[in-house]
Amino acid sequence: MTTAYAELTQRLADLTALEEVVGILSWDQEIVMPSGAADARGRQLSTVQVVAHERLTHPRLAELLATLRHDPTLDTTQAANVREAQRDVNKATRVPSHLVRALGETAVRGHEVWVGARKNKDFQEFAPVLTELVDLAKQRAAAIAPDRPAYDVLLDDYEPGMTMARLDPIFARLKEVLLPLIARVRAAKDVPDMTWLAQHVPAENQRQVGEKIVRSMGYDFSRGRLDTSVHPFCGGAGPTDVRITTRYNENAFLGSLTGLVHETGHALYEQGRDLSLADQPVSRPRSMGIHESQSLLWEKQVAHGRAFWQAHYPELQQSYGFLQDKPLDDFLRGVNYVNPNNFIRVAADELTYPLHVILRYEIERDLFSGQLDVRDLPTAWKERMRGYLGITPPDDAVGVLQDVHWSGGAFGYFPCYTLGALYAAQFYQAAVAEHPEIPARLAEGAVEPLLGWLRRNVHQVGSRLETDALVVAATGRMLDPEAFLSYVTAKFTRLYQL
Amino acid sequence: MTTAYAELTQRLADLTALEEVVGILSWDQEIVMPSGAADARGRQLSTVQVVAHERLTHPRLAELLATLRHDPTLDTTQAANVREAQRDVNKATRVPSHLVRALGETAVRGHEVWVGARKNKDFQEFAPVLTELVDLAKQRAAAIAPDRPAYDVLLDDYEPGMTMARLDPIFARLKEVLLPLIARVRAAKDVPDMTWLAQHVPAENQRQVGEKIVRSMGYDFSRGRLDTSVHPFCGGAGPTDVRITTRYNENAFLGSLTGLVHETGHALYEQGRDLSLADQPVSRPRSMGIHESQSLLWEKQVAHGRAFWQAHYPELQQSYGFLQDKPLDDFLRGVNYVNPNNFIRVAADELTYPLHVILRYEIERDLFSGQLDVRDLPTAWKERMRGYLGITPPDDAVGVLQDVHWSGGAFGYFPCYTLGALYAAQFYQAAVAEHPEIPARLAEGAVEPLLGWLRRNVHQVGSRLETDALVVAATGRMLDPEAFLSYVTAKFTRLYQL
Repeated sequence: MTTAYAELTQRLADLTALEEVVGILSWDQEIVMPSGAADARGRQLSTVQVVAHERLTHPRLAELLATLRHDPTLDTTQAANVREAQRDVNKATRVPSHLVRALGETAVRGHEVWVGARKNKDFQEFAPVLTELVDLAKQRAAAIAPDRPAYDVLLDDYEPGMTMARLDPIFARLKEVLLPLIARVRAAKDVPDMTWLAQHVPAENQRQVGEKIVRSMGYDFSRGRLDTSVHPFCGGAGPTDVRITTRYNENAFLGSLTGLVHETGHALYEQGRDLSLADQPVSRPRSMGIHESQSLLWEKQVAHGRAFWQAHYPELQQSYGFLQDKPLDDFLRGVNYVNPNNFIRVAADELTYPLHVILRYEIERDLFSGQLDVRDLPTAWKERMRGYLGITPPDDAVGVLQDVHWSGGAFGYFPCYTLGALYAAQFYQAAVAEHPEIPARLAEGAVEPLLGWLRRNVHQVGSRLETDALVVAATGRMLDPEAFLSYVTAKFTRLYQL
Repeated sequence: MTTAYAELTQRLADLTALEEVVGILSWDQEIVMPSGAADARGRQLSTVQVVAHERLTHPRLAELLATLRHDPTLDTTQAANVREAQRDVNKATRVPSHLVRALGETAVRGHEVWVGARKNKDFQEFAPVLTELVDLAKQRAAAIAPDRPAYDVLLDDYEPGMTMARLDPIFARLKEVLLPLIARVRAAKDVPDMTWLAQHVPAENQRQVGEKIVRSMGYDFSRGRLDTSVHPFCGGAGPTDVRITTRYNENAFLGSLTGLVHETGHALYEQGRDLSLADQPVSRPRSMGIHESQSLLWEKQVAHGRAFWQAHYPELQQSYGFLQDKPLDDFLRGVNYVNPNNFIRVAADELTYPLHVILRYEIERDLFSGQLDVRDLPTAWKERMRGYLGITPPDDAVGVLQDVHWSGGAFGYFPCYTLGALYAAQFYQAAVAEHPEIPARLAEGAVEPLLGWLRRNVHQVGSRLETDALVVAATGRMLDPEAFLSYVTAKFTRLYQL
């Protein structure tokens, strides 16, 4: 190893440690912090973030990266580490600090205004600050890459390499298949009894069942913990401290359980990172879309499927008496219940979810190209909602104001949810092609060889490969929507006897 | 406010935030961290500490302090803030980094070796690394103040301003009164039945009773929390996040409860700090001895006294059935039970505790003056234990190896425990002189006006005054042992009918 590379890794390790500290402070804030400490926590977090920013923009770090960028003695992992660090440094150095401050302050104000506007169901209260947030995001994009479309630069924050030019045809193809499929589900006569989904299950019972399933998925409690929180998340501090949270809705045991499986999918990705490189950028999860692929693979491909429940349904029946006489097939229809009349993205099922995302993507894209004005968002929202799902939200609170993302200035994030679903289907298809015994093993309650395949092809790879290269190496081809489309078509055709 | 002073407070606020971050990381490590995260936590902590050290030794900070040290426009609080910051800077800049590293590494090794030696009950296993630790502490003292006795410099770490010249006569006076008093207690015939102290009380019952008492003392749960841990402590991050822990020993409910009161005393001090200056050194608790005075005042003066139990004993009787027929007087003798045959400092009662401390002080003093060699410690220990308490520890594990302090290089800490007891007695005496109704109010379950007196005279003062000035302002005289001695003499003469 060269002296320069050794110095680089030391500097990057310090940055990783500081990011991990932010992870612990944030977890603490959500889960255990006394309410009176909020102001002090704000100061602690911003101090650590300022320190991290100073180190990330330190001239010596830029100098080391410049030296190493074309160093032929680096191996591929080291070169990838340099590439990842360079991307972080570019963003940190190119965005002027007055813009960082304005973004931060406007996001805080935006969130406050959004909370009020949503309460009052009035988008126009939110419109002025949203306009500011869009302008600031445009300025930021221009600072990072003045020659690229702003929205492509924003997409890059969450899904490096992704562009509108690639998303447009993928989303067009999704609409082409999903819209008629949803219409057929809507027309299906045989709507099963679903009242049992709302049966009361005490949180403690749910916790016991949930913990057992989390453990069976391979989550390592010696390198993590499970707590409850209003908004479930996967946080913590690096691969040896991966903390998940969940919420036990006592009148929606199934959603609580699959939500927990979702967070466990994120956690398995984090715990599966290359421990020998845990303090370096190259071991980091590749992107938001790939992260979401891991949560959705476990939540949807696995825990919405027959094989998984062949293993776990008997336990569930034993714990929840009201399931004792319910056949597995009926239960699976409940797990996969499609509700095209739902307005809310986070409550959406597997089939309609992509349309909630596409709607948001198209609005963001048109906002940043200048084709759409902020004040016209509610109209654009309703038109698209009618076009895609045939429904009209009664007010802004369950329409254009339902998501928190824009209030914090996060534009370009939404596509990752559906990219995650597409990656998940493509990964699962490839894993089963390589290990055809996966479903049979899941039906026995065993996560191997599925978990092993994910470890080798996704978790351990980290950011060694860029996204496309990772997907090609894992599945033999670039991302496309066909694995997802054939999976949902087959599944819902069967479940709804279309 | 001058520009220089404004810049100083900003730099000090950043340092405070970093210290608070260390507080949260440490609490997390003890209470919620998964075991597998230990190595990562070590890296996170050391990164934050290195950052803090860099900022504390930054030339600009020294420059600002030099400018402000003789600035006549500063008010007394500002001047005190400069003084406190200067002391931190002096220590950080005068100790060379190679020595800091050697101290840190040797302390880690020292702790490991001590654990093994204590297990094997063999001091000589520990002697070599203890010798290294003593040498390093001498080097450190010489770096900070080459013209002062090393042990005085070490005392200053915990109790600024304290010296051997002041401790020697105070401790001599304690021995003069306590030794004959203990002999009379030992000779007392009327030893009460104490088996009820070991009655089994489930942890959950203890928690309910404990929480109620903690609340009644004025502890604010919106700015803190109460958890359980093997070694109880008061930690957290500044006055709005004061976290206490306790241990519920199911066969020693009373010790668990008074231990909890002790930590609550520390916590009240932290919560009582001047919130408008919470991010500045001037609001910090004055010293270890003053901190211990707050825990001991509540634990001993208050929760070992009749007035407090007049208020709380009926609740306790209601919760713990076996106390129902036990008169308050018998209960109070249990609370104040003296056991001169106890070898262990942390298990010692109020009367014998100072002798455990004096023994350690004398050994440390003689070690650093060169009068005593490390290898002769067990002999010195046993001789003094025989001289003071008339007992000989059967082995090193319950003798010279019982405390963790030396294994981490903490020399000069022990005297603070007894200084705390002396300050506590002197403060309580002064508070009652000013508010004679304090005992009657305590007997009604009210902590006012005692808490108000402490807030005004100790908590809010913080480090505005140096220790002696604080004590004089609060009590009208310098620290002396007479308040403590008359208090214990009166109390134990009465309890043991001497």
